[in-house]
Amino acid sequence: MPILVQKFGGTSVRDAVCIKRVAKIATDAQKNGYEVVVVVSAMGDTTDNLIELSRDITNKPDPREYDLLLSTGEQISIPLVAMAIQSLGSKAISQTGLQVGILTEDRHGKARITEVKTEKIKKYLKEENIVVVAGFQGISEVTGEITTLGRGGSDTTAVALAVALGAERCDIYTDVEGVYTTDPEIVREASKLKNISYEEMLELASLGAQVLHPRSVEIAKNFNMPMRVRSSFKPQDEGTLVQGVREMELNNPVSGVALDESQARVAISGVPDKPGIAATVFNSLAKKNISVDMIVQSTSHDGVNEIAFTVDKDTIEDTVPITNQIAKDIGATKVTTDTSIAKVSIVGAGMIGRPGIAAAMFKALSDSGINIQMISTSEIKVSCVIDVKDGDKAVKAIHKVFELEKLEKETQRV
Amino acid sequence: MPILVQKFGGTSVRDAVCIKRVAKIATDAQKNGYEVVVVVSAMGDTTDNLIELSRDITNKPDPREYDLLLSTGEQISIPLVAMAIQSLGSKAISQTGLQVGILTEDRHGKARITEVKTEKIKKYLKEENIVVVAGFQGISEVTGEITTLGRGGSDTTAVALAVALGAERCDIYTDVEGVYTTDPEIVREASKLKNISYEEMLELASLGAQVLHPRSVEIAKNFNMPMRVRSSFKPQDEGTLVQGVREMELNNPVSGVALDESQARVAISGVPDKPGIAATVFNSLAKKNISVDMIVQSTSHDGVNEIAFTVDKDTIEDTVPITNQIAKDIGATKVTTDTSIAKVSIVGAGMIGRPGIAAAMFKALSDSGINIQMISTSEIKVSCVIDVKDGDKAVKAIHKVFELEKLEKETQRV
Repeated sequence: MPILVQKFGGTSVRDAVCIKRVAKIATDAQKNGYEVVVVVSAMGDTTDNLIELSRDITNKPDPREYDLLLSTGEQISIPLVAMAIQSLGSKAISQTGLQVGILTEDRHGKARITEVKTEKIKKYLKEENIVVVAGFQGISEVTGEITTLGRGGSDTTAVALAVALGAERCDIYTDVEGVYTTDPEIVREASKLKNISYEEMLELASLGAQVLHPRSVEIAKNFNMPMRVRSSFKPQDEGTLVQGVREMELNNPVSGVALDESQARVAISGVPDKPGIAATVFNSLAKKNISVDMIVQSTSHDGVNEIAFTVDKDTIEDTVPITNQIAKDIGATKVTTDTSIAKVSIVGAGMIGRPGIAAAMFKALSDSGINIQMISTSEIKVSCVIDVKDGDKAVKAIHKVFELEKLEKETQRV
Repeated sequence: MPILVQKFGGTSVRDAVCIKRVAKIATDAQKNGYEVVVVVSAMGDTTDNLIELSRDITNKPDPREYDLLLSTGEQISIPLVAMAIQSLGSKAISQTGLQVGILTEDRHGKARITEVKTEKIKKYLKEENIVVVAGFQGISEVTGEITTLGRGGSDTTAVALAVALGAERCDIYTDVEGVYTTDPEIVREASKLKNISYEEMLELASLGAQVLHPRSVEIAKNFNMPMRVRSSFKPQDEGTLVQGVREMELNNPVSGVALDESQARVAISGVPDKPGIAATVFNSLAKKNISVDMIVQSTSHDGVNEIAFTVDKDTIEDTVPITNQIAKDIGATKVTTDTSIAKVSIVGAGMIGRPGIAAAMFKALSDSGINIQMISTSEIKVSCVIDVKDGDKAVKAIHKVFELEKLEKETQRV
């Protein structure tokens, strides 16, 4: 029998009613001829509450203890989901990351999965169980200690399990109905995509359209595992299929517009124009575990440059002192920071080999009187940093200029 | 170095302030030259909340899933306590029942501990860690599945660990300051005992003075492990020492008065006077896992008897239909039940060989106009079932007649 992995996020298991809905979805899949593995996150605010408990004790929790604490979130939701499935008359058994044998690197807080043991799950599936697995957690392949996978961990667990089990597909149930051309809260006419490629999804995800975590998409891409983003509140709706080949990928050069307000901009001015400066700057930041997103270096005529980059707002407090030190070391004149920025991006595999797409985006912004502070481009993405106050206006203007409201209009099922 | 096991109940770890207090107590013991193992329960209402979550899903939770769910309660409190200890500058590491290797019978909900692995704890203690162990949980020695120990489980974990590690003592920190001659809420003059024997503690515990669970006292008694009942809110106070020999045991025949309002009385009337009837009755109840406490059988002159017994009120719904069936089978005439009863008991090793103690108790009750419905006696205990409305009055009268207010008056420390 084909195996289906279904992953349910925190809002999908936030209370008993939701958990029963999840049980129904899983048993329906079993009735439709699948062997079903369910991966669940912690209920609603559980993880936030656990984090708060720990903050009440200490600001610098020991990583090992912190992971043990956080791993309880999913350990609460899995037996509840298993009980709900049993109440519907199907066999079910829950499994923590430790019980399954989800092996990870030997690090806490954001361990990467190195291996997924499948013997136990396969045995339980053979015995007609729906197997309910705790997302977000594993054990160190070195010490056997409980680890957590960091942000997007449950999506990653689901895809990794799907790959290891040779599943037919991995369905990610969430509180939205699929992947949209942009945030429907900003553009009412946003349309839901039926299909999207891994690459586009990766760009959208990393741009703040946080439906799927990029780590999970990356694994799916590497092993060509189809994923479906769908809503646990509308299980009849097929949502958006994420896979290698997008059926209609050439119809429109742009698949979506994403807005990311979580970043801050740091600029080092008066940087002497000599080799190795950029390497020095970003090596120092990397050593402090600060992730840099956009990087723009401009060369001016008089031999001094500006290096500007964006980092997560959360890390700005760590970034500034390091950057100041670096600026001093390399003889730069000034460091400026701006936390009132937004990054607006267009994504689309269809823009490859089609000139003028970026230009059309820049024109849409300028026609709306929006000033562009930074630009960065890749093969299937163009990103602009603008003032945060212009974020919504920018998304609307771009969505309109590429006529995304006409793209793959959602066909509502009854 | 001598090993000290300290156990903290749910109220002692109910919030960050309490958890920090626990950390202080543990690190103080370490500074005083002990290797310290801390056993903790779930925080405050956590376990009740988990039970409620499960009730929202199903009334008949699968025992395996239920245990996995409940075991998260302690798994939340142990890393928090470890973090709090680390914040005070001591090394600490938390351990779930699974991580330690607390092996139990292969049953869920109220498994008994069969073996406690000590290698890991000893290693961590050698490395100067305070080891924080989750109470109430273990793993099946057969399947490796997570089990819970049922009521009093954390006390049992603590004593079992103390025994396995060869600890000097096991301190049970709770929200009361020790073991009293009776409930201070009923008798203001109740005095705190400095010492009590295992046997007396066992009788008091099983009589509803729920400071220590009888299972833990039984283990302590079997291995002669001294226990101290004390308050985490008044750690300077030495509380009550529970041990083999009570220093002043002959000073007073009675150590305490206990009131238990949790039971119900069931009586089978018109029971034919022939052998094997009692066995039939209590075998049938035992098969349904119903624990019977007091049993009184009266033989009347005309060849028909009455068998009366008490069971936990919670089990009365299961008890009645079984008892009705048995009554029918054995040709008894009637089954009556009464849930408005209380059991009042006196306990004291000093009553052995001293006649008249029981009589003095009966007289105190009759002087207060209290009717006795059932009597049961053991070597160090006399229990009477009375109307629940007379419970407090009975305790006061008995406390007074044995002058328990004069017993080992608490010496308040400053």
